[in-house]
Amino acid sequence: MNYAVILAGGTGTRFWPFSRELEPKQFMHVLSNNSLLQNTIIRLSGIIEPENIFIISNKLYLYELKSQIKTLKVPDSNIVLEPDARNTAAAIALAASLILAKDKEAVMLVLPSDHYIRGKKEFSSCIKSAIKCARKDFMVTIGIKPQDASTGYGYIKTAKPLSGLGVKCIKVSKFIEKPAFALAKKYAIDKRFFWNSGIFIWKASVFMEELRKFLPDMYQIFKDVKKIEQVGKKWFSIKPISVDYGIMAFSKKIVLVPADFYWTDLGSWDALTKILPKDACGNVSKADFLGLNCRGVSVFSRSARFISAVGVRDLIIADTPDAILVCNNNNAQDVKKIVDLLKVGRRKECISHITEKRPWGEFTVLQKGIGFKIKLIQIYPKKRLSLQRHTKRAEHWVVVSGCAKVTTSGKAKVVKANNSIYVPIGQKHRLENPGNSVLRVVEVQTGSYLEEDDIERFDDDFKR
Amino acid sequence: MNYAVILAGGTGTRFWPFSRELEPKQFMHVLSNNSLLQNTIIRLSGIIEPENIFIISNKLYLYELKSQIKTLKVPDSNIVLEPDARNTAAAIALAASLILAKDKEAVMLVLPSDHYIRGKKEFSSCIKSAIKCARKDFMVTIGIKPQDASTGYGYIKTAKPLSGLGVKCIKVSKFIEKPAFALAKKYAIDKRFFWNSGIFIWKASVFMEELRKFLPDMYQIFKDVKKIEQVGKKWFSIKPISVDYGIMAFSKKIVLVPADFYWTDLGSWDALTKILPKDACGNVSKADFLGLNCRGVSVFSRSARFISAVGVRDLIIADTPDAILVCNNNNAQDVKKIVDLLKVGRRKECISHITEKRPWGEFTVLQKGIGFKIKLIQIYPKKRLSLQRHTKRAEHWVVVSGCAKVTTSGKAKVVKANNSIYVPIGQKHRLENPGNSVLRVVEVQTGSYLEEDDIERFDDDFKR
Repeated sequence: MNYAVILAGGTGTRFWPFSRELEPKQFMHVLSNNSLLQNTIIRLSGIIEPENIFIISNKLYLYELKSQIKTLKVPDSNIVLEPDARNTAAAIALAASLILAKDKEAVMLVLPSDHYIRGKKEFSSCIKSAIKCARKDFMVTIGIKPQDASTGYGYIKTAKPLSGLGVKCIKVSKFIEKPAFALAKKYAIDKRFFWNSGIFIWKASVFMEELRKFLPDMYQIFKDVKKIEQVGKKWFSIKPISVDYGIMAFSKKIVLVPADFYWTDLGSWDALTKILPKDACGNVSKADFLGLNCRGVSVFSRSARFISAVGVRDLIIADTPDAILVCNNNNAQDVKKIVDLLKVGRRKECISHITEKRPWGEFTVLQKGIGFKIKLIQIYPKKRLSLQRHTKRAEHWVVVSGCAKVTTSGKAKVVKANNSIYVPIGQKHRLENPGNSVLRVVEVQTGSYLEEDDIERFDDDFKR
Repeated sequence: MNYAVILAGGTGTRFWPFSRELEPKQFMHVLSNNSLLQNTIIRLSGIIEPENIFIISNKLYLYELKSQIKTLKVPDSNIVLEPDARNTAAAIALAASLILAKDKEAVMLVLPSDHYIRGKKEFSSCIKSAIKCARKDFMVTIGIKPQDASTGYGYIKTAKPLSGLGVKCIKVSKFIEKPAFALAKKYAIDKRFFWNSGIFIWKASVFMEELRKFLPDMYQIFKDVKKIEQVGKKWFSIKPISVDYGIMAFSKKIVLVPADFYWTDLGSWDALTKILPKDACGNVSKADFLGLNCRGVSVFSRSARFISAVGVRDLIIADTPDAILVCNNNNAQDVKKIVDLLKVGRRKECISHITEKRPWGEFTVLQKGIGFKIKLIQIYPKKRLSLQRHTKRAEHWVVVSGCAKVTTSGKAKVVKANNSIYVPIGQKHRLENPGNSVLRVVEVQTGSYLEEDDIERFDDDFKR
C-alpha cells in the first residue's frame, strides 16, 4: 500500500504578520479557501487513501489540525505529535517506523505541508511514476526544473537517465545546499540541475535501511518502534538534522523524477506575489485597497481596515489587526529578522493574532482599558470551556447569537441571545454551547488584573 | 484695542487618514500636546487678550472648539459659527463687522488656525510691528522669506521699503497665485519675493472700507451688522471668494512686514515630516515602529498597532484604527485625491474616525457583527445623552469606570462600576454621568438594525 506523510510542524516566520508562532504558514488561506495544508491533502486524492495519510506536527497545532482535516476524511488518529521539533530526519524516521509496523511493503510519500503546486494532473502522474521507482527500492526525490537563478532553494545535480523502469527517472549525483547567486546562475541554465522540492518517495523499509547506514544512532531509537509512546525520553537525545543532510547527501539509491507541475516553496511574501494575478500596473490586492499611481504593489489584509497607497513601487503591504508590514519586494527574506526582534522583545505580535484559537472555539480581545477588557468569544457547537474560577476579575457575558448554557456555583442556566449573565470574582463557572450553531458571547471583564493566567481549572474536556 | 480672528472652519484633507471631515487638521495633535489651533491661540499671549480672540468656524466643530479652548480663557461666546463656508473674505468681513460694532478703532489680526510657527518671540515682535503699521491705516500682510522654490504657496512681490513708521515694512506691488516651478525657482532667489502666510493685520474700519471698494455686494450684507443673526438668509447669497483674490489683489494700502520666525502652512504630510527631528537614517517615528534598512521613512500612528517596514525609502506611513496610508514623500499632495475618491464612494473613512465625538463625550465602535455591535462609550463629568428610544435594538450597558445614572421608563437608577443594566427595545432611556470623573460604559447592542439613525430623541441638553 501507499502512504503519505505530511510534515506540518513548521513555524514559518517569513509570512509575518499573517503567520504567527501559533498560526504558521501551512494553516494560511491566502491563495484559496483551503489552507496550504488542506490543499496538500486534497492533491493526494486518487493517489493515497485518506486513512493512509499521516500528519506529523506539534502539540501546539493539534486543535487547528483537527479542525482543518475534519472535512477531508483523514482520521484524527493519523495526527502524530512529536514531543518537540528535531528536524525532518527524525520526523520521517518516526513516521516510517509507524507505517512499517502496519505494512512491511509500504511505500511512503513525504510531503511538506506549506508549498504551492499548480497542476493536479501533472502532480498525480509524477507521483505515480515516483511510486513505481520506489517499488524497485529506489529512494526517489521530485526535482523541479529551475525557473530562475534562485538562491533560496537547494539544488540537485543529476547524472544519466535510468532506463528499464518504464518511467522518466534520472540517477542523482549530488545534493547541493542553497548556492551563492553566481553558482545559481550556472545551475539555472544547466539541464542537469534541478531544485530540491523536499518531496520524497521510498519504501519505509528502504528508508530504515538507509537510516541504519547513515544515522545509526537515530536508527537505534526507531528500529523497533510500533507506537510513538515507545520512543519515550529517547526522543530528546535525537540530534536534529534534516533528511537532506543526514541521508540524501550519502545514499547511493537516489533517483530523481522531474516534475512537470508548477512548484514554489512560498518562502516569502515575494514568492507569493509572483503566483498571484496582477492588474495592468502589476499590483495585487487581497484587501480593501485603493492605490494611486502604484506599480508592483501587493496588498494583503486580514483586517477590515481600508488601505491606500500613493505613488509607491515594488512594495508588499501586509495588514492584520495588531501589526502591519510594509516591505520592499527585494527585502522579503528579511521579514524573518523582524520576527526575531519581536521574539527578543517578548512581543505577542510574533506569537499569536488578536483572535486566539482554543479547542472549544476562539476569542478576540477587542479592547483593553484600565480596569476592563472586552472580548468576543465564539464557541463551536457542543463544545464547552473548562470549569474555572478567576481570583481577580468578574465577567459580564452578553449572548449575541446562539444559546449558552452557563453553570455558576454548580447551577446550570440557559442564557439565550440578547440576554446576559454576571459571574462575580471567585465564582466557579463554565460556559457551554449546547446548540447546533456557533455561540457568540461578548465578555466584559472588570478587575484590577485581567491576564489569561488568572485562571484555576477544575475540569476540562481538553485536559489542559 | 487689538483683536484676533482665527479662521478655523477648514476641512483639510491632505492629512488623511489622521484628518477627517469631522476632525480637520486644525484640531490635530501630531506635533505637541496642543493642537495647531491651541498653539495658534497660545502664540497670541502677550499680544491679544483672550477675550478679544474670536474663532470663526462651522457648527460641525462647535463642541470640539469648546473643548479645545476650555483651558485657554477664550470665552465660548467668541466662537462665531458661519451658516456655511463662503471662503475667507466673507468670514473676515463677518468678524470685522462684529468687532467694529464693539470698537471703532479696533485693529484685527487675521490668522489661519492650522499653520505651524516656530519662534514665539520673533512672532510676537513681528505682529507688534504689523499692528503699528495697521494703526496708520495700512493693510498689513506678513511675508515669509522663501525657503525653497515651493509651488504650494502664493507669492507676494514687494516694491520699496516704507520709512517713517519706525518698523521694517515694505510696500507690496503684487499678489501672485501659486506659481509653476520655473517661476517659483526665480521667485525663491529674488529678494523682492515673499511667501503669502495668510496672516493679515488691519483696522476693522479700513478693511470694511476696502470691502466696500472691491466687494461692494458683500459690503452691503455686512455694513450694519452688529450680531451674526442680522446677516440671516443674506449669507447664502454671498459669492465665495478668498480675501486674497477679492481684496488683497486690488487694494493700494497693502504693506508687508517680513517674518523672522519659521513658518509652514503644513500643507501635506511631507511638510510635516520636514519639521520633525529625524534619526541618523532620516526616519521619523511617532508610532510603535520598527524599521530595518529604511531611509527617509516617516511613521505616524493613532492606533496601538505595531508597524514595521523593511528596505523602504522616502515613504510616509500614517496609520489609524480604520484606515492606513502608505505614500511616497513626493506624492503627499495627492492624498487629497484619495479623500475625493472616498467621498465619491460615500465611505465613512473620509468623514470620521472610529472614535466619534459628541457634545457629551465620545464613542468607539469596537466590533460589528451580524445582529450585534459593541461600543465603548465615554461620558464627560456632569454630561448626559439625550432622552431617547430605539425601535430596532436593545442595549446592554456594563459600567467599567465611573458611576452612571440611568433612567429607564422614567425611573432613575445609579449603576456603579462593575455593574450592568439592560435597556429593552422600545424603552425610553437616558444615560448620565453625575460624577466628577469620566464615565466609561461598554454597550452591547443587539437587534436586526444597528445604525445611528435608529434614534428618537425626546429631550436633549444639546438641542439636537
